[in-house]
Amino acid sequence: MPSALAIGIDLGGTNIKGGLCDAAGRLVAQRAVPTEGEHGPDHVIGRMASMARDLLAAAGGQSVRVLGVGAPGPISHARGVIFRAPNLPQWINIPLRDRLSDALPGLVVVLENDANAAAYGEFVAGAGADVEDMAMLTLGTGVGGGVVVAGRLVRGAFDNAGEIGHMIIEPAGRPCPCGQRGCLERYASANAIAERTAEAIAGGARSTLAARVSSGERITSADVLAAARAGDTLAAQVWDSACRYLALAVVNIQHLYNPQLVVFSGGLIQAGAEHLLVPIQRHFDLLRWKIAPDAPRLALATLGTDAGVIGAAALARETLPG
Amino acid sequence: MPSALAIGIDLGGTNIKGGLCDAAGRLVAQRAVPTEGEHGPDHVIGRMASMARDLLAAAGGQSVRVLGVGAPGPISHARGVIFRAPNLPQWINIPLRDRLSDALPGLVVVLENDANAAAYGEFVAGAGADVEDMAMLTLGTGVGGGVVVAGRLVRGAFDNAGEIGHMIIEPAGRPCPCGQRGCLERYASANAIAERTAEAIAGGARSTLAARVSSGERITSADVLAAARAGDTLAAQVWDSACRYLALAVVNIQHLYNPQLVVFSGGLIQAGAEHLLVPIQRHFDLLRWKIAPDAPRLALATLGTDAGVIGAAALARETLPG
Repeated sequence: MPSALAIGIDLGGTNIKGGLCDAAGRLVAQRAVPTEGEHGPDHVIGRMASMARDLLAAAGGQSVRVLGVGAPGPISHARGVIFRAPNLPQWINIPLRDRLSDALPGLVVVLENDANAAAYGEFVAGAGADVEDMAMLTLGTGVGGGVVVAGRLVRGAFDNAGEIGHMIIEPAGRPCPCGQRGCLERYASANAIAERTAEAIAGGARSTLAARVSSGERITSADVLAAARAGDTLAAQVWDSACRYLALAVVNIQHLYNPQLVVFSGGLIQAGAEHLLVPIQRHFDLLRWKIAPDAPRLALATLGTDAGVIGAAALARETLPG
Repeated sequence: MPSALAIGIDLGGTNIKGGLCDAAGRLVAQRAVPTEGEHGPDHVIGRMASMARDLLAAAGGQSVRVLGVGAPGPISHARGVIFRAPNLPQWINIPLRDRLSDALPGLVVVLENDANAAAYGEFVAGAGADVEDMAMLTLGTGVGGGVVVAGRLVRGAFDNAGEIGHMIIEPAGRPCPCGQRGCLERYASANAIAERTAEAIAGGARSTLAARVSSGERITSADVLAAARAGDTLAAQVWDSACRYLALAVVNIQHLYNPQLVVFSGGLIQAGAEHLLVPIQRHFDLLRWKIAPDAPRLALATLGTDAGVIGAAALARETLPG
């Protein structure tokens, strides 16, 4: 191992997070600053470079030769370009990798999409640290994904592999802004759970959440889970349906990638194993094939919001020889 | 490249096919004999070893150090074992790799499932020879599959990756003998196309095939295509529906693996590009997302029944150093 330390940076719409990671994926130093995206790409890139210099200084005398960046996309890993970033206005076709390389002589810079970086972080140092094949689903505003096959991140020919949220799981289903119908994320993201509940109430379904929805309040997936736990039938149905669609996605992941492990991350996992993994497992056991004992284990992510930093650093380290 | 030639053997229920392949995946010698599976595993393994010796002799003075075998499964690549082979009675937990290694001193033997071997054959020397990421769907009795990511065959943790035929594409759909509902192969295999047509006729649908079905004749997918081309509405609907489900599978493959290329092989591709690729492409263009230009190209396989031999040889060659 020519260099034990690598820098990882996770570029988000609100904050830039960074860390210095050792070869085991442990964070030995961490930084976070507001992104200040309203000042445009040059400003943000300058803040990322400053953070990298700060982390280089934190390494003391130890050699640091690589910097990995996880960024919202679509991006091109091969070209190091961010095509668009939904939460960062003016970020259109920004060659972030080369801009950072120019600002940080001596560092090899690697760009990866944030969902892939987070999945790889869980793979090297989190829920997937003991497996070689895993898939991760990040359940938040949408459903993101990242997949590792035989120890390697799957990028695909167009750097869009692992877009699990846009797997079609209901052929004549709910329209998705992506242009498809029946995408997983239209049923099983945190937003979809809140939205499907509000739609059913607007359509006349009875629920303890009805008064709040009717008054124009925006309910969340946490509200839906709380109502379900308190006995609300509609909320319980919507929550269970989301878990069933996630189980269906796991069946398809099982047959396509055949991993040992499927990890769930993102805001929705605050529901905990009892309310998320247990119902997904129950539906999975009903839905899956019975002819081979090749079911993946289900687990919650363990690294929280550090996964992206750790994964970006680990992916950067892979560019080092030997 | 320490050795230019490798032996590939494709074990089928009816025939054993073998070949001597060069480093470019070209067959420089070929053999085929009836499997004679009714005489049991020992007999068949003896026939495979004889064929390998015959191909070694055909290599003349050239060094041959590896033998790849593609076999029906489920199998374990890692352990070299055939767990079961649907068309080969008595093949239960047969350690085929070690049996052949013992019979053929000096050869390293590699076992792979036949669908993976065929996909890898198309990847090294057929429709996928110019790409790094591809998926193949084999449309026959069922729907088989094999996937290559960044130049490497995807096996998964349990050697069952690429079971594309058991992707669920209709959640409350047709029951499958595997124990699931709505598997792709219950809609888009050659058998499913014939079966769905016969079922519709039995249910009262009008068709030019009705008299044959009612008399107890077993129609084929070729009969359905011929009827569709002659103007039969039911046959055209069933054929088009199969193409639509294949397009849906391609959308999901696009988002999970993101390959440049999706290849179709198997008996159904005798329909030709006009009746298979054109309708799949039309449905795909309607179904797929519109936010990224990352659609795979669709193609027919080019190696026919040689793909398994070529792929098995190429996979065996990968065990060689350098």
